[in-house]
Amino acid sequence: MKYCAGVDIGGTTIKIGMIDSDGALVAKWEIPTRKGENGLLFMKDIADEIKRFVEEKDDMTMEDLIGVGMGMPGPVLPDGYMEVCVNLDVHELYPARLLSELLGGIKTALANDANVAALGEMWQGAGKGQDSICMVTLGTGVGGGIVNEGRIVSGMHGAGGEIGHMCVEPGETEVCNCGGHGCLEQYASATGIVRVAKRKLASSDRPSRMRDVADLSAKDVCDLAKEGDELALESLRYSMDRLAFILSHIALASDPQMFVIGGGVSKAGTFLTDMISEEMKKYQGIVPMDRYDVALATLGNNAGIYGAARLVMPEEAAEA
Amino acid sequence: MKYCAGVDIGGTTIKIGMIDSDGALVAKWEIPTRKGENGLLFMKDIADEIKRFVEEKDDMTMEDLIGVGMGMPGPVLPDGYMEVCVNLDVHELYPARLLSELLGGIKTALANDANVAALGEMWQGAGKGQDSICMVTLGTGVGGGIVNEGRIVSGMHGAGGEIGHMCVEPGETEVCNCGGHGCLEQYASATGIVRVAKRKLASSDRPSRMRDVADLSAKDVCDLAKEGDELALESLRYSMDRLAFILSHIALASDPQMFVIGGGVSKAGTFLTDMISEEMKKYQGIVPMDRYDVALATLGNNAGIYGAARLVMPEEAAEA
Repeated sequence: MKYCAGVDIGGTTIKIGMIDSDGALVAKWEIPTRKGENGLLFMKDIADEIKRFVEEKDDMTMEDLIGVGMGMPGPVLPDGYMEVCVNLDVHELYPARLLSELLGGIKTALANDANVAALGEMWQGAGKGQDSICMVTLGTGVGGGIVNEGRIVSGMHGAGGEIGHMCVEPGETEVCNCGGHGCLEQYASATGIVRVAKRKLASSDRPSRMRDVADLSAKDVCDLAKEGDELALESLRYSMDRLAFILSHIALASDPQMFVIGGGVSKAGTFLTDMISEEMKKYQGIVPMDRYDVALATLGNNAGIYGAARLVMPEEAAEA
Repeated sequence: MKYCAGVDIGGTTIKIGMIDSDGALVAKWEIPTRKGENGLLFMKDIADEIKRFVEEKDDMTMEDLIGVGMGMPGPVLPDGYMEVCVNLDVHELYPARLLSELLGGIKTALANDANVAALGEMWQGAGKGQDSICMVTLGTGVGGGIVNEGRIVSGMHGAGGEIGHMCVEPGETEVCNCGGHGCLEQYASATGIVRVAKRKLASSDRPSRMRDVADLSAKDVCDLAKEGDELALESLRYSMDRLAFILSHIALASDPQMFVIGGGVSKAGTFLTDMISEEMKKYQGIVPMDRYDVALATLGNNAGIYGAARLVMPEEAAEA
């Protein structure tokens, strides 16, 4: 049996997974992210962990390891260059090249973490059997990844699939984390959903059980909307309308088979995906938007590991 | 020398070009589009024209013809199926398969005409030397094509690059040709530019030389805007703002190296592309929009021929 390692590098922890050529996750563990020396510390840790795993596994040698794929939270240029990765304190680095050197010249690959998660969901998650999906992660921010005919659309500036920062409200006065105004993230992320709800509460005296919640969360807004609280429902519908507006544009740009919704907010389930589907219909013209499935992600936090491993998996194995 | 034929099939005429493996257009001619028998008539004409050309050319046999690529005005599914092509009176057909049969099993390929034009501009036009561009054709309608890493993004429903029908004004009351409301085409096409200008004229008594023009055209609006007519300038700027809004979304979806503007309206030249660049800056957040060149198309009506030929050109020849 041959294996690929998938490494999902976050600001606090690094998730490492070993996936066999049948696509099964055979081992998974985490290590803390040791920042410093421009990424060299945590890169050495990753190399050591992989070597240790192979050594300890009875029926495996380094010959059985096809390669190591990685996801990192920042823009990756087509040649693998990262100008900056703020969360990891890394600047002007070719991370995949570095890891390959640390592992004796093994095949390595790198992509943006949201893009890698999309690839993972396409391969072994909600998009299994498809080859073109767009994944949206609704968490603290809004992450996005587009996979077209089996390949991540990384883009020429590493901005491929950055749907969280597409402008949906040019007149917005509050500034987004990215420095822009009216980004999708300001409306449809967990933070954005709360922000929209609070604005809605402040703009009228209409009754809502949201007023009784001390530290309103996106989960509260979703739960109350499900229970029929009118203001919560209107508010959430507006947030999902802004997402649907952007998804209708993606539909007519890369035209995927389906949209996959992940992240903490997606725990609201089909109530949320049905709402997104419904809102998308408003924007249909030349292509009926009900052709696009809107599905819940199924791999959770493992999507990044699967996708990272898929980056180095040979086509014939990946399709088996 | 080896050759590829590029065929651009329109509702009135069919353009045929013969391109050698150095990328030079060595011959180009047109025939009328004979509709009927579900495309069989014009497909036979194309096959006959190509055979005749090869026969008449002294130093060429059918062995020297690598293949024939085609562009057609409608959605093409990943397997080459066209459910319907209204302008050509074709239904439920695999056109590339049919043409291959008519030419003794030669390599053939088909893509949507706007997508093929984008591929042509990437290969031998404004995008020469790049491999990822988005082309927008501002004519009677708004056509679009996205090429990512050298390949057309056709999409799973044939809707890839259909930027003319992305919604930019959900509140629009007039209906677009496609049945939708507020499509980009309603603002930024030649027709749309005139519509926006007429609305602007009707909404105020402000003076404008546009009021003196009997049958206002997009060219009139552009010319008067260039000459400093304030209302014409405001009106055109609004039309280009709607285009820039969408281009900023494409920038964060497929993240091309550049945008290429073609079609009749693009005859307004760099005045127009500078305006589009300027308007795009309003929508920059995580990626500065001035990273994206906005260039004029250079191949004119030949873009489709080049792109269609490129569909069947082997990689090593195309990159030579």
